[in-house]
Amino acid sequence: MEHAPTGHAADDAPGPANYVPLSPVSLLHRAADIYPSKIAVIDGERRFSYTEFRARCCRLASALVARGIGRGDTVAVLAPNTSAMLEAHFGVLMAGAVLNAINIRLDAPTIAYCLRHGKARILLADTEFAALTRAALAQLDAPPPVVDIHAEGFDAHISDTTYEALLSGADPAFRGPGAQDEWQTVSLLYTSGTTGNPKGVLYHSRGAYLNALSNALITGLTPECVYLWTLPMFHCNGWTYPWAVTAVGGTHVCLRKIDAGAIFELIERERVTHLHGAPVVLNLLIHAPAEQKRPITHRVDIGVGGAPPPSRVIADMERLGVHVTHLYGTTETYGPSAICAWQTDWHTQPADAQARLRARQGVRMLAQEDIQVVDTLSGQPVPADGETLGEVLLRGNAVMKGYLDNRDATATALADGFYHTGDLAVRHADGYFEIRDRAKDIIISGGENIASIEVEEALYQHPDILEAAVVAAPDARWGEVPCAFITLREGATLSPEAIQQFCRERLAHFKSPRHILFGPLTKTATGKVQKFALRAQARAHVDATTGVPS
Amino acid sequence: MEHAPTGHAADDAPGPANYVPLSPVSLLHRAADIYPSKIAVIDGERRFSYTEFRARCCRLASALVARGIGRGDTVAVLAPNTSAMLEAHFGVLMAGAVLNAINIRLDAPTIAYCLRHGKARILLADTEFAALTRAALAQLDAPPPVVDIHAEGFDAHISDTTYEALLSGADPAFRGPGAQDEWQTVSLLYTSGTTGNPKGVLYHSRGAYLNALSNALITGLTPECVYLWTLPMFHCNGWTYPWAVTAVGGTHVCLRKIDAGAIFELIERERVTHLHGAPVVLNLLIHAPAEQKRPITHRVDIGVGGAPPPSRVIADMERLGVHVTHLYGTTETYGPSAICAWQTDWHTQPADAQARLRARQGVRMLAQEDIQVVDTLSGQPVPADGETLGEVLLRGNAVMKGYLDNRDATATALADGFYHTGDLAVRHADGYFEIRDRAKDIIISGGENIASIEVEEALYQHPDILEAAVVAAPDARWGEVPCAFITLREGATLSPEAIQQFCRERLAHFKSPRHILFGPLTKTATGKVQKFALRAQARAHVDATTGVPS
Repeated sequence: MEHAPTGHAADDAPGPANYVPLSPVSLLHRAADIYPSKIAVIDGERRFSYTEFRARCCRLASALVARGIGRGDTVAVLAPNTSAMLEAHFGVLMAGAVLNAINIRLDAPTIAYCLRHGKARILLADTEFAALTRAALAQLDAPPPVVDIHAEGFDAHISDTTYEALLSGADPAFRGPGAQDEWQTVSLLYTSGTTGNPKGVLYHSRGAYLNALSNALITGLTPECVYLWTLPMFHCNGWTYPWAVTAVGGTHVCLRKIDAGAIFELIERERVTHLHGAPVVLNLLIHAPAEQKRPITHRVDIGVGGAPPPSRVIADMERLGVHVTHLYGTTETYGPSAICAWQTDWHTQPADAQARLRARQGVRMLAQEDIQVVDTLSGQPVPADGETLGEVLLRGNAVMKGYLDNRDATATALADGFYHTGDLAVRHADGYFEIRDRAKDIIISGGENIASIEVEEALYQHPDILEAAVVAAPDARWGEVPCAFITLREGATLSPEAIQQFCRERLAHFKSPRHILFGPLTKTATGKVQKFALRAQARAHVDATTGVPS
Repeated sequence: MEHAPTGHAADDAPGPANYVPLSPVSLLHRAADIYPSKIAVIDGERRFSYTEFRARCCRLASALVARGIGRGDTVAVLAPNTSAMLEAHFGVLMAGAVLNAINIRLDAPTIAYCLRHGKARILLADTEFAALTRAALAQLDAPPPVVDIHAEGFDAHISDTTYEALLSGADPAFRGPGAQDEWQTVSLLYTSGTTGNPKGVLYHSRGAYLNALSNALITGLTPECVYLWTLPMFHCNGWTYPWAVTAVGGTHVCLRKIDAGAIFELIERERVTHLHGAPVVLNLLIHAPAEQKRPITHRVDIGVGGAPPPSRVIADMERLGVHVTHLYGTTETYGPSAICAWQTDWHTQPADAQARLRARQGVRMLAQEDIQVVDTLSGQPVPADGETLGEVLLRGNAVMKGYLDNRDATATALADGFYHTGDLAVRHADGYFEIRDRAKDIIISGGENIASIEVEEALYQHPDILEAAVVAAPDARWGEVPCAFITLREGATLSPEAIQQFCRERLAHFKSPRHILFGPLTKTATGKVQKFALRAQARAHVDATTGVPS
């Protein structure tokens, strides 16, 4: 049969009636049109309806545009999870500009680096962070103008312009240029960068919209959802949930500080249905003092990501009455790219086996087209045997544009048609992948690979261990050996020998930690253990005990 | 402040790692990867897992490509809601071709017109429609090759090639070219066209994907959903639900024929959670004989569209134990473009007021960017007064590419950056719009506009009236007057005078039907009353009773 083109495929180019660049801003306009008087945002004593929330976002956009800020210009925000931070997620985009949400736990030199490298045209800064802001600005030759977001209880001033004054002088009905094409940059996020300078991840408007829709659908958001902001919005734009929750017309509940008592209280009072965070947030809730805990009597879904949750943490959370789903993602992929999707036959498994199944990273979200685990040398997919390690690669519409002003790093990260995560995983027979380690966190002992996560998982099974992290320590004979850092539960005592014995009953001997150190773990703002810092401590420990510098 | 472009917006063009053309095919691959052994399709005695379903779709694509069919080529399907029809919704797209799902209720000359005008390269035909297919093919100079989809109980043959033989010889692991760009045409659908030849509506891949996601999110589909196919897939590709249900990994339940007993049985046996249809389907369920009805004990969501559901029909359905949502759309906009979204304060309204609120067309779905109701002369939005009539205009990513080989009709339909629906509506104070009539269905009596729907709504309040339709009849004095066509409930008797009296108690006198005719209503395949046919009957009635041809 000869192919005879009918010619109709080429007809009819896109036009304004049937083509609209994908933008999260559309989601706010729809919610405000449909649910004008519904509560969009709760921030302490303040409650904004969707009409008010949209008006505030439009005012912000109008004020930015009036200051000459537009496409390609960076608007930096240094703030915790407040209404202003949510407003920036729409207002900055309405102005056609680029939102740079800065991690509030960074030090002043790093913040100065971000402002300089990102060419911030303006900085909106919460007054709780006035001292930090001033210290960062002092390091810049040409600091951007600052707008104070006044925080209750923090009366310090950084600037003469306040956020509320900026809004009050602006147009609540402003309809900005928005995204003129969907490849336009809408967000700039600096990776925490354990070595060297942080890299500036650029998000395109298309990915922001599609990832928000994918998240809303796959994590079951509805117009009745009430979302508690335990996840920092400066982390992957809160995994795109400022846009996802708004897509369904749900309610945002702001939270300035992670505090177990406040979280339990808000869950009860506002009838929170969804919240997200790193395992550290879950640990905080599990180990909260009894007087802070409150019974959870309605359905609450917690998505946990940023680090693999030990299966015991999942089991403990479920005992508190919430449903835990494990999500996996990276800054470069707009947050959650994989979900440990529930399979109905898991119901028949014993609780421990279930928790283990659910601690895996899982399968791709809708906005990712493909997830592969490939051999780092051959580039070929590893067998689905649950054992062979490979690097996790992602491809899809929710992958970053690239790194700002860093073509080499972009080319490396997006080589061969995939984003290379640097995470090492196995693929299980059911297709679910499970991270074993960051490529740089793997411990190579006598030629054998030890996944630090596997050792941590064993340690977490001990009832007296609150937190555990395992890194490589140098060893004259084996090259590297596992070194465990342990935080015990309050009141517990445990000897290194008892811990080693406990591990040897559960792991191959060479995987059991050779060195054990007690104390709090060094963490990033998002609750990730800073293994590079622990590795330095491990090295110092070995040097001190052997007397030989490694 | 001077605008100083930072230059980073233009960096980093899309590449294979971060840009994938939006296509419904991606949704099937994800579902099959994640839920390989879950039931995707139930069709009578046959049950296909997602692995099997994908394999069958890939086989179909492989067979089509092997026959030289590819981008821009039309694959016509004449079939009811079977597994083969679902498979065509993915397999044809995998091959990069254009699916033309043909209405099985059309007559042979119209089907012949569609095959000729659409340049069908191949026709897959269900053997229940063998005679119809043969009659249509007989009218073509160069009929396309036919593949028989064998239907149980219908042993007629049209061709020597059967669908199952086609699949069995093909590659279950085939990965076709798919959509190479997202503006590629994936579907061709002929409008029922009450006058003149039907027009061929072209869907782009981008709109199919986005409308499916929008529908899945806004109508609350989850991986646990079980979708009963009461809505014909040849109608707007089943409102994009073949793709939406697959997006979440739900289960499709096929249905060859609309039959109240079968529907009640499947709802109970398969625990159906969602179904869609025209008001006629709801009427069928409401008035089913008692022995066919079964109690509905789990949550069932019914979306009703294609025609505005009389508020009594909504109320009656809720008494059967299902939740009704009113959807509105057109073939040109991929089916549902608006939803009568529930507002929490409606709970406080009495049942009648609630049903009236819920019979309105509502507010836009996510994939529509804007819905306007504009004055047909000035093009300006009508006031939100619930009274002023205007035409409904739509704009967004789920608007067709255009009409096949009909640039004039395309230019008219998509003029001024909007799709012009031809539907007349009012806008209520809460922003919800409510269709009063098709532009051509309005009755103009003594210079006053009468919306036929308003008169029908009054008639439906009468307990003895099963169905009602109102059209214009010519009148020497008033120009036009309302003429009502009435179907009474079984066993009921009612005089024209009693009906007129009933209406005058509820409507302005000039809106009350002048003429009343009893009997079954002429309808299209999708349950829409064919008002053009009723108008002809009304004209004939007036001619006969006055003795003067109108």
